[in-house]
Amino acid sequence: MSETFFMPTRLISGSDCINLHADRFDAFGKKALLVTGAHSAKDCGAEKDVITALDSRGIAYAIFDRVMSNPTVECCFEGAAVAKEEGADFIIAIGGGSPMDAGKIIAILAGQELTHEALLTGGIGSSVLPIVMVPTTAGTGSEVTQYAILTNDILETKTNIVSERIFPKLAFLDARYTQNLPLATTIHTVLDALSHAVEGMMSVRTGAITNALAIEAIQRVMAAVPLLAEIKADTADIAIAIPIDVRQSLMMASTLAGMVIANTGTTVVHAMGYSLTYFHDIDHGRANALVLPAYLSHVAEQNPDLAQKVLKALDLPSPDAFRKTIDALLGTRESLNHEDVQRFAKMAIVTRNIGNCIVKPKVETIEMLFQESMAG
Amino acid sequence: MSETFFMPTRLISGSDCINLHADRFDAFGKKALLVTGAHSAKDCGAEKDVITALDSRGIAYAIFDRVMSNPTVECCFEGAAVAKEEGADFIIAIGGGSPMDAGKIIAILAGQELTHEALLTGGIGSSVLPIVMVPTTAGTGSEVTQYAILTNDILETKTNIVSERIFPKLAFLDARYTQNLPLATTIHTVLDALSHAVEGMMSVRTGAITNALAIEAIQRVMAAVPLLAEIKADTADIAIAIPIDVRQSLMMASTLAGMVIANTGTTVVHAMGYSLTYFHDIDHGRANALVLPAYLSHVAEQNPDLAQKVLKALDLPSPDAFRKTIDALLGTRESLNHEDVQRFAKMAIVTRNIGNCIVKPKVETIEMLFQESMAG
Repeated sequence: MSETFFMPTRLISGSDCINLHADRFDAFGKKALLVTGAHSAKDCGAEKDVITALDSRGIAYAIFDRVMSNPTVECCFEGAAVAKEEGADFIIAIGGGSPMDAGKIIAILAGQELTHEALLTGGIGSSVLPIVMVPTTAGTGSEVTQYAILTNDILETKTNIVSERIFPKLAFLDARYTQNLPLATTIHTVLDALSHAVEGMMSVRTGAITNALAIEAIQRVMAAVPLLAEIKADTADIAIAIPIDVRQSLMMASTLAGMVIANTGTTVVHAMGYSLTYFHDIDHGRANALVLPAYLSHVAEQNPDLAQKVLKALDLPSPDAFRKTIDALLGTRESLNHEDVQRFAKMAIVTRNIGNCIVKPKVETIEMLFQESMAG
Repeated sequence: MSETFFMPTRLISGSDCINLHADRFDAFGKKALLVTGAHSAKDCGAEKDVITALDSRGIAYAIFDRVMSNPTVECCFEGAAVAKEEGADFIIAIGGGSPMDAGKIIAILAGQELTHEALLTGGIGSSVLPIVMVPTTAGTGSEVTQYAILTNDILETKTNIVSERIFPKLAFLDARYTQNLPLATTIHTVLDALSHAVEGMMSVRTGAITNALAIEAIQRVMAAVPLLAEIKADTADIAIAIPIDVRQSLMMASTLAGMVIANTGTTVVHAMGYSLTYFHDIDHGRANALVLPAYLSHVAEQNPDLAQKVLKALDLPSPDAFRKTIDALLGTRESLNHEDVQRFAKMAIVTRNIGNCIVKPKVETIEMLFQESMAG
């Protein structure tokens, strides 16, 4: 079978990397639209660093800071209107998955006239503004993928817009922006990255390159797990509790795992997680982490060699040990009633993610995985 | 310190991948120039596969099959003249490092008017034809780099043309084309890949991503070493002696190692090897392998942690064990007289490669490394 790999984003990482490589912005034009949420980009210092860098290069900018968590299409149309009004040549998205994914959609909608329906059916057109990414969480990997996840209120789930035209041109990976993330956000985003890497290894599109990147990502996350598990939820100073070198390693893990799913896609785990997020407002990374151990157990039964490969990367003896590791980070699991189990399983089984699985679950398997994963 | 990573080439690997993904050629135009050596592209079947794929997509082509080993600038001007005459929209280079590197230069020279001097001083202009690569050896990694090595008779060494504009757009990695490579070529090219991966780990530009790729490349090469070492030089059927899955793994190793040096550059090892190739006609990969163990020993003295990292990837206990491993593949080492040692050391010390070394050698060190590496 053929293996393919493509990841054209330029990565620059390290402390103060935006300032040190400000000249990289020159290639994209004379005016940028900064796409952010309401607060985090400002609070973490990333927005200020971007503005300083743009100023130093004589590049003008406008700001669209109205991206909500789990952004909608409407929000992206709003941002695109601002981009057009301001004559932005390129997009700089600063934030977690939501601003980054919204930034990608805004880059599409600002580049051409496109209807809501056309966008959701994948007709994204050929004229997309260049996209620069500044992640401020370590988890989504959106800075190195061709994916943008939107909340789709018609289908009552998330819709994944997929196009190589929305691969970011450039991403700056500076872990200082993650230093004050609350413990729960830190854990949930890190578990998202872990899930990406593990799912990538269990995808039919796995290959030599993604495998090497996944293993590196997994090892970085697992190295940080003992520390993350021992920090108290009410830690006064999270920036001290998690040293910057751990943060930088986790940011790299997240990007590595993003490079993986850009090429492998995700599995049934993400398909199951989407409903938990959409209907029960469970953080995306947490939602994946809730169901990942049960799926690994299932894989261990159906394809022991594959599970063994993953366990070796995790440096754990069994799927049970993996569940214990995850549980130490998640705390109490949310419950799910029987109707939701059935409904969510039906939604998951029809996603493209199922085709990605080396071990393909039936709808009954997915129900069982939900039951094993959620409190009764 | 900042870490950067960029590798925009699309990779497609596996048996018959050109045919299976022939539609990928459509993006590059209506006429291709195939750049090859005199025989190998034809003999190994790659040229035929490319032509069949182009025919299936209605893409015309011309052939320039006059690339010699260690190509000169003149040869590339010749090829570019053919490209212009034929109105080629893109270049498909088929072969080992020589046709691939020549293909890159032809893509530059066919895209614009450029003097010999301008080319060698790096003024390569902005209009470069798209480049597709079909490697038929597993070693150089040229299919994923922004480098093209030319023989430079003025400077009496090799000149490295470096530009992101010559990153191939697409590379097909089908190990079937390497199945009949003679044992010596197989070993020398594999050792080139190994050298790239090891040097990448010892470069000041090493980082998380290149490190993960380098380790994977090293493990693949080392897994094949026992087999390669036991095959007799007069083996009647090399295609049977080295199974196709080993060949495919080595081709991936070569590409992984290419991705590494695209981001890390090479070290003093390559700088030393260039003179061995230019003046003594020693195969490029062999030349690197001759000096690599001595440099690793030197690194072990100066920076034990770094050497330990490399040895761990190699799964070997010491630099001596590494030398023994390499010796089993190289056989009798070539000799080098004292004048050449001094002359080549002087040439190596002024290369950009020295700046890449975490353990920077003095000119006396380089002399010593030559002495340790070559028969007296």
